[in-house]
Order: sequence, then structure tokens, then C-alpha cells
Amino acid sequence: MLSIDPTIRTWMNDAPGYLPPIAIGDVVRSSGAGVVVESQSPRYEVGDVVTGFTNWQEWVLADADHRFTVIPKGLGLDLATVMNVLGATGVTAYFGLLDVGGLVPGDVVLVSGAAGATGSVVGQVARARGAKQVVGIAGGPAKCTEVVEDYGFDACLDYREPHLARRLHEACPEGIDLFFDNVGGEVLDAGLSNIALHGRIVLCGAISQYNAMERPPGIANTAMLIGRRGRMQGFIILDYASRFPEAQRELAAMVANGTLKHHEHLVHGLEQAPDALNLLFTGGNHGKTLVVVDETVQLD
Amino acid sequence: MLSIDPTIRTWMNDAPGYLPPIAIGDVVRSSGAGVVVESQSPRYEVGDVVTGFTNWQEWVLADADHRFTVIPKGLGLDLATVMNVLGATGVTAYFGLLDVGGLVPGDVVLVSGAAGATGSVVGQVARARGAKQVVGIAGGPAKCTEVVEDYGFDACLDYREPHLARRLHEACPEGIDLFFDNVGGEVLDAGLSNIALHGRIVLCGAISQYNAMERPPGIANTAMLIGRRGRMQGFIILDYASRFPEAQRELAAMVANGTLKHHEHLVHGLEQAPDALNLLFTGGNHGKTLVVVDETVQLD
Repeated sequence: MLSIDPTIRTWMNDAPGYLPPIAIGDVVRSSGAGVVVESQSPRYEVGDVVTGFTNWQEWVLADADHRFTVIPKGLGLDLATVMNVLGATGVTAYFGLLDVGGLVPGDVVLVSGAAGATGSVVGQVARARGAKQVVGIAGGPAKCTEVVEDYGFDACLDYREPHLARRLHEACPEGIDLFFDNVGGEVLDAGLSNIALHGRIVLCGAISQYNAMERPPGIANTAMLIGRRGRMQGFIILDYASRFPEAQRELAAMVANGTLKHHEHLVHGLEQAPDALNLLFTGGNHGKTLVVVDETVQLD
Repeated sequence: MLSIDPTIRTWMNDAPGYLPPIAIGDVVRSSGAGVVVESQSPRYEVGDVVTGFTNWQEWVLADADHRFTVIPKGLGLDLATVMNVLGATGVTAYFGLLDVGGLVPGDVVLVSGAAGATGSVVGQVARARGAKQVVGIAGGPAKCTEVVEDYGFDACLDYREPHLARRLHEACPEGIDLFFDNVGGEVLDAGLSNIALHGRIVLCGAISQYNAMERPPGIANTAMLIGRRGRMQGFIILDYASRFPEAQRELAAMVANGTLKHHEHLVHGLEQAPDALNLLFTGGNHGKTLVVVDETVQLD
């Protein structure tokens, strides 16, 4: 099963990034999960379900330079849920909000891409950790309704409607203490223009920019960070690998007690992976997008 | 003596800021220094030289809501030097670099507005605190020469020449660990595009934007903060008021031992204050711009 993440698109640019670009003709890099069919290592037993960089392929060879993590048995969750909430998606939400963003109880929290796999977890963890108000931004009325009714945000603004910055001011008249941004561009700018004193902006992604064919208009409101003594900070979840269990424990507990709603969008067949990736940019997905390569791989 | 600072220009916008806008017809808000001519308070003695918000006027009344700080006697420095290096200008450089930017020995440091009052101090303190390389950005060859020869920067780039981002990459091929930005706009963008892993950008000012009559092009490279795990943070020096003595001790010692070069640009006559402010935006000043209102005010 492949995890279809917006960051895959960034690896396809012929430009320096946090990982080397995927070269023409290379297998597409991707997180995923699979079952061990043969092992000469004490690290893996045949039948283990493991996660790591499987890439877009049916078989992968693990070695000392390319390691996988065995998913513990008996979690009581299906593989798609584990790939979503306990995978990179969920822990990205967790560490971005708590560690990079430094959420404190009473914060007014804004989340862009709020109907997405990461954004929906951000809002629910923020609520559980005592945020005063949780506001989402999403594309279209159906997603905005889902953000409020399914994921429990206080409000959700449709970025496709005009005057986003003004509507944000109306929704959060005291300003935004913590903005978890997955989108970049105009959405980031609208959040910047409404940042509260000592506000923090967590840059998780910039999905609005990844397919840009022309130079986008650029961010006009960075100087808001001066007067408001604000901080804008980016992160890459790979840096938190050693701390994943801490996030996974809390997220699993929230799933178990029903306070963390989640949705997976399953696409069937390896050959569908490119179309599945494109769904992230058209907004045609509903929740965490996963490609099922082999239907028989399941957790115990 | 009035301290002519770029931030005065921001107070003239009819827009929310970190202090209320100066209204039409109001006295222009400004830091300054003056001598006490009459006192009914144990806080001030006649003859004390004090600093604070004097505003653009010849006389000012101190009261409980409008306090001044007495400049200690026997500093062995003239008033212009104290207004520059020990005033808001110097302490802005100090806390922005060390506290907001978190300078560590070995950092590659970039400073925009490097020939300016704040930027020149930033570079010299960075050098004294163990920066590996100190690079400036300034306007025109004369200022760039001054930054290197007088203020001891390793190099200085002229932002008026093309391809600033590429020249920055050539000057700092490993990237910039700490960028102290006074300028904003294209200069900020060029620095962002060259930020090193875990780089920090200190937003002190955005002088390139303060007089903009049209919407500037905007910042294109904020997403660099994601891949490079960077942080961009603004600050206002008023928040550090209680810690000024800590900075002033170190800066005074550097002046005394000759490791902190400084230059003051004196403009004579209160009626020259508007022209003096404009010098900051044309680059016509040379060092810290001060307006001498009364030539007789001197430190003991």
C-alpha cells in the first residue's frame, strides 16, 4: 500500500530539495507498507508488515542503507488507518502543531488544507490539547462542511470565495495565535495578515505552489511578523523519526476513544498511482490518499 | 538631539502597527535625547541628559505616563555616539542578532542594510562573537567598500547590481545560517533562497517597502523555510527595554577597545527633521542619522 503525499510532487522538480530529485527513469520515491516475503536479516520475519520508502513498485529490497520499520502486531487497526493516522501524515500533524508550533491551551488555531489528511488531524489534536478556537480553510462547501461536522472545527472558510483575509479577521477578530499551513501562496498571506501578537506560523507544505507553471504573485505580508513579533518556521517530519512512538501512542489512543476522526481514500492498482497523486492537487480526494497495490496485505 | 529611525515612517501609515499611527496634525513620534531644565520629580535632576520619546519638538513634558531614562554621567562618550551605539540602534542589533537570531560561533551571517546604523553593528558583534563569515548587502560601491574596510565584513554585495541571489550563492556556497534583514522585498527573497539547513532569518525592518506606492511583487521563497527547516522571526526592540543595560555594557566595551566602529550623520536644525528622515530612504545618509535641535546639549 502506497502513501500518496503532496511532497512526492516536490521531489519531481529538478531543483535542490530536502531529498535528491527523482531522476527521469527512476522509480518514484514514496512511503508505503508491505509484507516481508523473504528475509536474511534478524530485523524482519517473513509475514511482518513493514513501513518505509517502498517507492512506486511491487517489490523492494531492504538492506543496511534502506531500512523499514515493523508495524507492531495487535494494534487493532486496519492497515489504511495505520498508514494514515500513525504514518507520516499523523505524526506530521502532531509534531508540527505541538513541537514546531508550540501550541498552548487557549490558542486560536488556524489550519489550511483542513479537510486533508494532515490538516484534519491538526485540528482535532489542537482541540484535544485545549485550543480556544479551531478554524479551518478548505476548498469548496462540501469540504468545509466536513471539516466542521466530521472533524469538529469551530468554523471553516472556503478559500475559493473572495476576501479570505477579511473573512479570517471576522472569524478570528483577536488574531491567530498558531497557523498550521499546508497550502502556501494566497492562503498563507491571508493568515499572515491576521497573525496575533507572538503568533507562530508552521510551514508544513505549500501545495498551492507545487504545480505552478508561472512565478506565483509572492507573499506580501511577511513584515507582519515584525510588528506582531511573529515566527514562521518550516519543518520536515523525517527529522522527528526517533520520536514517532510518542506521537503514535497519543494518536492511537485518540482513535480508540473516538476523538480522532479520519478518512482514507483508497485507489486500487499500482498503475493508478500517478492519477492518485494528481487527486491531491485537484482536491478530488477525500481524506488520506492510499494506493492499494496488493489487496492481500493486511495487519493481524 | 533626535534619533531618525526608519520605523518612524511606519508610524505615518494609517494602518494598525505596533504603536498607534501618528495622526494628521500630531507631533511626529521620535526617540531623542534632551537636557532636564526643570524638575518636580526625584527621578530627574536639572542638568540630567535623558533619552526617550522626545518627539520632533523642542520641549517635552515627562510625567508618569511618559518617562525618560537618565544617561549615566562619565561614560566618556559623546552624545551622538551614545544615541547611536547605546541607543535603540545598537541594542536592536545586539538583541536581534543574539536573542532572536541565536547566533552561534561558526555561523555564516548575512546582514542587509549593512552600511546602516543597525546593520554595521550587527556585523561587528557577529564577528566578535565568533561568526565564521560575515557578509553584507548595501546600496552602491561606496557603501560596500565602507562595509568591508571600516566595519570589517568579509564581503559586501551591492543590491543595485543584478542577480543578487546568484551572487549570494557564490559568496556563501554552504548557505546562510543567520540572516539579519533590515530591508525586506527582493533582498529578503534573495537571502531566503540561500538559507542553510536550520537557518534563522531575523526580520528587523523592511525599509524597501515603507514608501511603496504600489503593491510590491511579494516574497517568492518562503517555502525554502520548509526544506531547510528554517525559521523567520520578527521583533520590536521595545520588548527588550528591561535588558538594555546588558547590551549597552558589551557595546560600550567594544567602542572603548576599538572593535566597534560607528559613524553618525548629523543634521542641524529641527526644521530639517523631515529631510533627515527622507535620507534613510534615498541612502543619502552615512551612518546613524541624528538631528541636532540644540547644539548646547552635551554629555559630561
